[in-house]
Amino acid sequence: MQVSVLFSGGKDSSLSAILLEPFFEVELVTCSFSLLPVGEVAAETAEKLGFPHRIIEPDMVVLEKAYCTIMEDGFPKNAINFIHRNVIECLAAQEGVNFIADGIRRDDRVPLLGMPEIRSIEDRFNVHYMCPLKGFGRAAVDELVNEYLLIEEDLSENILKADYETELRELITRRNGPDKIKEIFPVHVQSHVIERRKAEQKKITT
Amino acid sequence: MQVSVLFSGGKDSSLSAILLEPFFEVELVTCSFSLLPVGEVAAETAEKLGFPHRIIEPDMVVLEKAYCTIMEDGFPKNAINFIHRNVIECLAAQEGVNFIADGIRRDDRVPLLGMPEIRSIEDRFNVHYMCPLKGFGRAAVDELVNEYLLIEEDLSENILKADYETELRELITRRNGPDKIKEIFPVHVQSHVIERRKAEQKKITT
Repeated sequence: MQVSVLFSGGKDSSLSAILLEPFFEVELVTCSFSLLPVGEVAAETAEKLGFPHRIIEPDMVVLEKAYCTIMEDGFPKNAINFIHRNVIECLAAQEGVNFIADGIRRDDRVPLLGMPEIRSIEDRFNVHYMCPLKGFGRAAVDELVNEYLLIEEDLSENILKADYETELRELITRRNGPDKIKEIFPVHVQSHVIERRKAEQKKITT
Repeated sequence: MQVSVLFSGGKDSSLSAILLEPFFEVELVTCSFSLLPVGEVAAETAEKLGFPHRIIEPDMVVLEKAYCTIMEDGFPKNAINFIHRNVIECLAAQEGVNFIADGIRRDDRVPLLGMPEIRSIEDRFNVHYMCPLKGFGRAAVDELVNEYLLIEEDLSENILKADYETELRELITRRNGPDKIKEIFPVHVQSHVIERRKAEQKKITT
């Protein structure tokens, strides 16, 4: 069974892939609207983790709509959730994609799909959507990350990560200037995976 | 890192243990109030799965309180949740227990801990509570179960399983007769694991 894991190069999506690895053929998939080389950055990290990687490029309309939403709202939640849902749908529509996973944790609020959205996607596209970290709190995730990953953490503006926020911030900066970013986005720390500490090697005997 | 997985002998708790196996030293733990040999039944299944197993026996007061609750409510939800929370607390209080897991799925309603209950247990006992299947829907769980487990499914009354319901039903039957069971419990299908289809063998290289 193959699973497509949405991959930002951060610790949560990396750990999700590692947790699924013994049970699925894992491929990492990064969303890019080509405003920044986020796909390439993610590809480098994916290589260090030892997983195949590919980039999906949803319609630019998705980013434009997210831009309109965030400018109207003045906060990122709805815009990020909108991109996330559309990326999952874009992936779910592809042939051969049956299992989709992401790095959402128990305590995450953004991005987050509601149960009606999840059921709708699973039913319409005949896919399984899975969040391997959904039953893990922050502290448990940190224990596992320490065990399996070497990461760096810094403020969002200092880390080139392949999450939805990165290109949305770039679009806002180009159109409205860097001060708008400070207005809209809370200051928060992001993680970027430097390398894998241990390689989990699976061997299944029937 | 060792994880104590609450184990009923059913497919969900078995699959949870299997998903954690590559990353933790797994021990299976079954709750019993000694009304029925549920601990022994679970021990047999645990052996087939290849995991160490032990039984915990919470204070009989827990089952008595659950009995009072269910007789007052006329439905099992609150009573089952009460037992579940107390079993987790009983386990969390034991020395050497740092990670506790159970088999709760995305769509499960009973047993279920609320976020305030989870945070309270994690903070008071300094443990990590994890639900490896929390981010998996029923269909995804079934796919993994088919891959890794051979199970039998039947109505609750025909399957001797080591879940909280089994001994609670027994207590009600002894005190109020079998007709009371039909009044209180919805008819539902339970699973019991017969054997493991594949052995996941881990090998971690640093």
